[in-house]
Amino acid sequence: MTRGFLLLFFSLIFLGSPSLAAGPLSADGDDGYQLWLKYEAVTNPTIKAEYLKYTAFIGQPTEGKILQSASQELQTGLKKLLGKTVNITNSFGSRSGGIVFKIETGADSAQKPEGYQIKLSGGNIVVSSKTEQGILYGTFALLRHMQMQETIKGLSIASSPKVRYRMLNHWDNPDGTIERGYAGQSLWKWYELPERVDPRYEDYARANASLGINGTVLNNVNASARFMSQEYIVKVAAVANVMRKYGIKTYLSVYFAAPKTLGGLPTSDPLDPQVRAWWKEKVAQIYKEIPDFGGFLVKANSEGEPGPQDYGRTHADGANMLAEAFRPYDGIVVWRAFVYKADPNADRFKAAYEEFVPLDGKFDPKVIVQVKNGPIDFQPREPFSPLFGNMPKTPLGVEFQITQEYLGFATHAVYEAPIFKECLDSDTFVNGSGSTVAKVVDGSLHGYARTLMAGVANTGNSRNWTGHPLAQANWYAFGRLSWDHQLSSAQIAQEWVALTLTRNQKAGEHITALMLRSREIYVDYNTPIGLSRPWMGVHFAPEPWQNKGSRPDWTAVYYHRADSIGLGFDRTASGSNALAQYRPEVQQQWNNPDKTPLPYLLWFHHVRWDQKLSTGRSLWEELCTRFYTGADSVVWMQQQWDLAKENLDTQVYADVAERLKVQRREALWWRDAWVLYLQTFARQPVPAGFNPPKQTLDEIKRSVNVYLMR
Amino acid sequence: MTRGFLLLFFSLIFLGSPSLAAGPLSADGDDGYQLWLKYEAVTNPTIKAEYLKYTAFIGQPTEGKILQSASQELQTGLKKLLGKTVNITNSFGSRSGGIVFKIETGADSAQKPEGYQIKLSGGNIVVSSKTEQGILYGTFALLRHMQMQETIKGLSIASSPKVRYRMLNHWDNPDGTIERGYAGQSLWKWYELPERVDPRYEDYARANASLGINGTVLNNVNASARFMSQEYIVKVAAVANVMRKYGIKTYLSVYFAAPKTLGGLPTSDPLDPQVRAWWKEKVAQIYKEIPDFGGFLVKANSEGEPGPQDYGRTHADGANMLAEAFRPYDGIVVWRAFVYKADPNADRFKAAYEEFVPLDGKFDPKVIVQVKNGPIDFQPREPFSPLFGNMPKTPLGVEFQITQEYLGFATHAVYEAPIFKECLDSDTFVNGSGSTVAKVVDGSLHGYARTLMAGVANTGNSRNWTGHPLAQANWYAFGRLSWDHQLSSAQIAQEWVALTLTRNQKAGEHITALMLRSREIYVDYNTPIGLSRPWMGVHFAPEPWQNKGSRPDWTAVYYHRADSIGLGFDRTASGSNALAQYRPEVQQQWNNPDKTPLPYLLWFHHVRWDQKLSTGRSLWEELCTRFYTGADSVVWMQQQWDLAKENLDTQVYADVAERLKVQRREALWWRDAWVLYLQTFARQPVPAGFNPPKQTLDEIKRSVNVYLMR
Repeated sequence: MTRGFLLLFFSLIFLGSPSLAAGPLSADGDDGYQLWLKYEAVTNPTIKAEYLKYTAFIGQPTEGKILQSASQELQTGLKKLLGKTVNITNSFGSRSGGIVFKIETGADSAQKPEGYQIKLSGGNIVVSSKTEQGILYGTFALLRHMQMQETIKGLSIASSPKVRYRMLNHWDNPDGTIERGYAGQSLWKWYELPERVDPRYEDYARANASLGINGTVLNNVNASARFMSQEYIVKVAAVANVMRKYGIKTYLSVYFAAPKTLGGLPTSDPLDPQVRAWWKEKVAQIYKEIPDFGGFLVKANSEGEPGPQDYGRTHADGANMLAEAFRPYDGIVVWRAFVYKADPNADRFKAAYEEFVPLDGKFDPKVIVQVKNGPIDFQPREPFSPLFGNMPKTPLGVEFQITQEYLGFATHAVYEAPIFKECLDSDTFVNGSGSTVAKVVDGSLHGYARTLMAGVANTGNSRNWTGHPLAQANWYAFGRLSWDHQLSSAQIAQEWVALTLTRNQKAGEHITALMLRSREIYVDYNTPIGLSRPWMGVHFAPEPWQNKGSRPDWTAVYYHRADSIGLGFDRTASGSNALAQYRPEVQQQWNNPDKTPLPYLLWFHHVRWDQKLSTGRSLWEELCTRFYTGADSVVWMQQQWDLAKENLDTQVYADVAERLKVQRREALWWRDAWVLYLQTFARQPVPAGFNPPKQTLDEIKRSVNVYLMR
Repeated sequence: MTRGFLLLFFSLIFLGSPSLAAGPLSADGDDGYQLWLKYEAVTNPTIKAEYLKYTAFIGQPTEGKILQSASQELQTGLKKLLGKTVNITNSFGSRSGGIVFKIETGADSAQKPEGYQIKLSGGNIVVSSKTEQGILYGTFALLRHMQMQETIKGLSIASSPKVRYRMLNHWDNPDGTIERGYAGQSLWKWYELPERVDPRYEDYARANASLGINGTVLNNVNASARFMSQEYIVKVAAVANVMRKYGIKTYLSVYFAAPKTLGGLPTSDPLDPQVRAWWKEKVAQIYKEIPDFGGFLVKANSEGEPGPQDYGRTHADGANMLAEAFRPYDGIVVWRAFVYKADPNADRFKAAYEEFVPLDGKFDPKVIVQVKNGPIDFQPREPFSPLFGNMPKTPLGVEFQITQEYLGFATHAVYEAPIFKECLDSDTFVNGSGSTVAKVVDGSLHGYARTLMAGVANTGNSRNWTGHPLAQANWYAFGRLSWDHQLSSAQIAQEWVALTLTRNQKAGEHITALMLRSREIYVDYNTPIGLSRPWMGVHFAPEPWQNKGSRPDWTAVYYHRADSIGLGFDRTASGSNALAQYRPEVQQQWNNPDKTPLPYLLWFHHVRWDQKLSTGRSLWEELCTRFYTGADSVVWMQQQWDLAKENLDTQVYADVAERLKVQRREALWWRDAWVLYLQTFARQPVPAGFNPPKQTLDEIKRSVNVYLMR
């Protein structure tokens, strides 16, 4: 072929201009940075006309910083939603046609201080609250209403938070790494602070305030003592200055041994007067720089961290010493109940209850004990922690994990609202039927003075904040539930999709369907029927065979207990009797293997491989069915996503579509790993209708080992 | 004061609308993402008219992927520069008024394959080269020319790279952390690959190609064996697919013990036939996925990494075994000379020379030995490595460090071109005067077949790529020098500032002045007169007192040797005699303390505290003068930056201004730490005219200890 002919031929297939190079340098796709605060232009002309009637001005009566944030947000939002710049004024007298903020200091409504009302009055939209913070939350609620293009005819919204401390926990280390973070590096740039204040801190604060989150713990619970140095307190203060404008208090995790390592004292014994004085002075030093400092979060005598037990003292001794230091201030002490001692004969399930229940009533009123939703550690499914309901004299906060430590990192789509709701809606029966975990946590059951909901953050410096675009929904869901735990998973999903991805109804339905099923799908290929913790190493790849650890509960086999007879952890009276930590009504749900709901079966029972289950299948058949249909359901997720394609931004579409491909591949990996491993015990073929794995167990183990290498 | 009065008072001071919230959610400042490829609109009307004459079409004769990248870049650039969309066509015959690519396959010019010519011909701008890659480089050169608004009358540019392998080394770990990285997390998202290919990879490739960089080593030299697994090879291939479009070859760092740890062999002995077979098969496996794979980079028997010496073999044995595996392919083996054994009596300065010079002539032709610019480890100033010139039969590449491991991380502005140039321009005298390191590295001195310049990358997933906005200039400078080491530091700075920050001449002069002095300023407050390595721990805070380490050269006192007599490391014949590794002409420069230039004085001599120096001051006085004037010069840098303010983007201005504040604070910290510490030996007051430090040495040590805590 001559060169001339080649050129001719080529000209036939190569015409026009190729598309511009991909990548943000030249493209303008949605990179996810704006989260659910995109304020896309209102397209419904009737609705737009309604809204425009109230855009003569924004009435901000006083100068407070938080009110200013609310005004600015409203101005930004209205500009984007309606294309109109609305002026902010404090001299609006009896003008109408605007949006007006009204602080009702004297109002004796049932509203909590942070609650708000939005209604039409005097020809204005009036956002009222007892506090500036309430106005800010009301403003975000109004903007959410408008983003959803809902009518404002007869507008009347009133809402109050059910929980007082609504908090993110960042497991961020001072070197910028994030423990269990899958969305890049820490947002907090300690080496640049205090002089340089990254503009992103403000966007972080806005996003949280839009959900009603009012606290943030900046550093990892495996804490560095350096945060207690003057050098770092000043850095923290610079972050707190930004948070304050959005009604968010700043908290720190503390290293219990800091009096020794940082203070140079001979001990960190909480009953030692020098130690007590050191903490008092330290807290005073912090309040000097951060007058609205939130308090301390403490992980003590847990997974090797120091604590009061190092000196023969109790968790209450440790917590109360810190609480004493906070007495002159508003701050609180949040003490984690995530503890489990190394004991070859113990059931880790029971550890937190055993250590904490005897301390009920011994904690200072400034202490809240923070309890993980389940008894082990953020598994894809856990029964609720038996601590809930069993410490009536001690405010118990709940700790959820938003970051996907055990939920496939940033490559598996798992919508977590159903996990949070499952715990909150669980009935402890401690004061009879209806004594849900939610009522424990919101204080209505035991009359706690202080109530708390905490979420371990999934944020990082990735452009889209959370790595997986759909993981933004988990941050959103946590925040919304911390404000109102009665919202449904579906409602939150619909809201988030409309604000963030698409207002198209049909597309929205496909995406919310995907989201709402995603957790069960993940559980099916990962830990069905009550399996748990098939990881050690990096918490990523399947390792159900892992049987070496420095302590028995740091192996995988400890949790599933597979043997030639069957599978599962007997926690009935014939086993560890962990079930006895629950009320009889709960025990009845779970103590009979024939009646235990399948999602919890292997949490509480060692079940024979050939045992017939309520589905009519044997345990082995049911397991295989879950592994196979779970992995195949990822294909269904891909289909749902593709059905929404034409109503999605191309960049967001591609990002999620590619991650779903990874999820599909990894789901097959999980399926094959489990099936082949459990088959060595069950000694049965893969049930008819499913194709046996093509890889051998050894090949899979080798592929997993790759992820365990340095 | 009544409420009414308050409101009235308030209305006087609070009028109009506050500015919109800061932060990218609402602001549109320059976030630095676009680097030097902003293509800001041409403002000079005469020049614009000139350019517009050649915008009838872009003539891309054939379909090659790299040509397509060039066309697309040109189209994007012209659109932004001139506001005109120029069509790309392959059927342009004898049309004029366009920009035409011309591959000159048969041309027997002196041009190297990657070189290019740009000239006016036949009414077109013609970019010609022997290769597609050369066209791409020429296109970027043309766009640079246009960004600088230079005339194209009589346009005639020809350029060829002086070095064949122009490469970034990423010290990125598979978990996303970056060893010595200060700009966020790794760009490479291993958990998402291969399915998800982050659009940012392409912008990375464009930025590098725009400088002529043609290779990238994706992973840390402290390498994980996992990159040799099929799982990871497929991931790497997905990145390589993006790089290929921009003429960039992908390389991997390898873990020398991989045959054992990954392959399951009983040994990794390079002379073992099984091991040799394993590597051959491994390399074949890689080429199956990545047909243009670049090769391996190896850190062996260095700082605890495994290597051939574990089996009594030499570096040459190890390197040659790998080279053998590459024989059927284009790839190469880059073997690092950064070695230093633990030996209490040795001078670490001499280690690399002692191990490598005896191996000259023993390496396979496919091996390049990569030598750090200086004999120790990327200090703010080092003499050139004595290896340069002393291995005439072995291609020696140079390794520079772009990331600021010892240059103040991301909070100190240090423009590095002068560091790179200082090494390249050093005369080794091995073939008489003029035998510069540059001529060793570009192969002209010894006739090396393969030549290499490598830079340890300073990129991360920070929005602006490099953390400190001015650190982008270091990436830029490395790339430009790797193409043409004869460019001056000033020329490169001017270019970068004009492309990236401002075209205003006066503002540009202030910024380039700041940049060009920045390295000497840093040296003055950090390691003046030839001091080195006053860090251990995190390489951030001053620790000249650090005297505990598992080996003597892992302390700070090893390097400065302060005592009651004086300061500095005697490397003359009376000391370690490291000087003997240089040619006599070089020795003469440095062996007489009275004649040694001050920048190198303490590198080679132990000097008495009261010794009068060429400045007329005693050593102690000179040191203090440097520490004080160095730290104060940061104020001058702040002034220069402020003088450019009105011609800078507000976001970029603020970012750098804030970092300069941090730098000022930290420079004072360095000054005080050094002065107080050295004073314990010199026992002299701070010279008149300088205020003694207000802190005590103990206080400073405590503040440093904060940075050494977990």
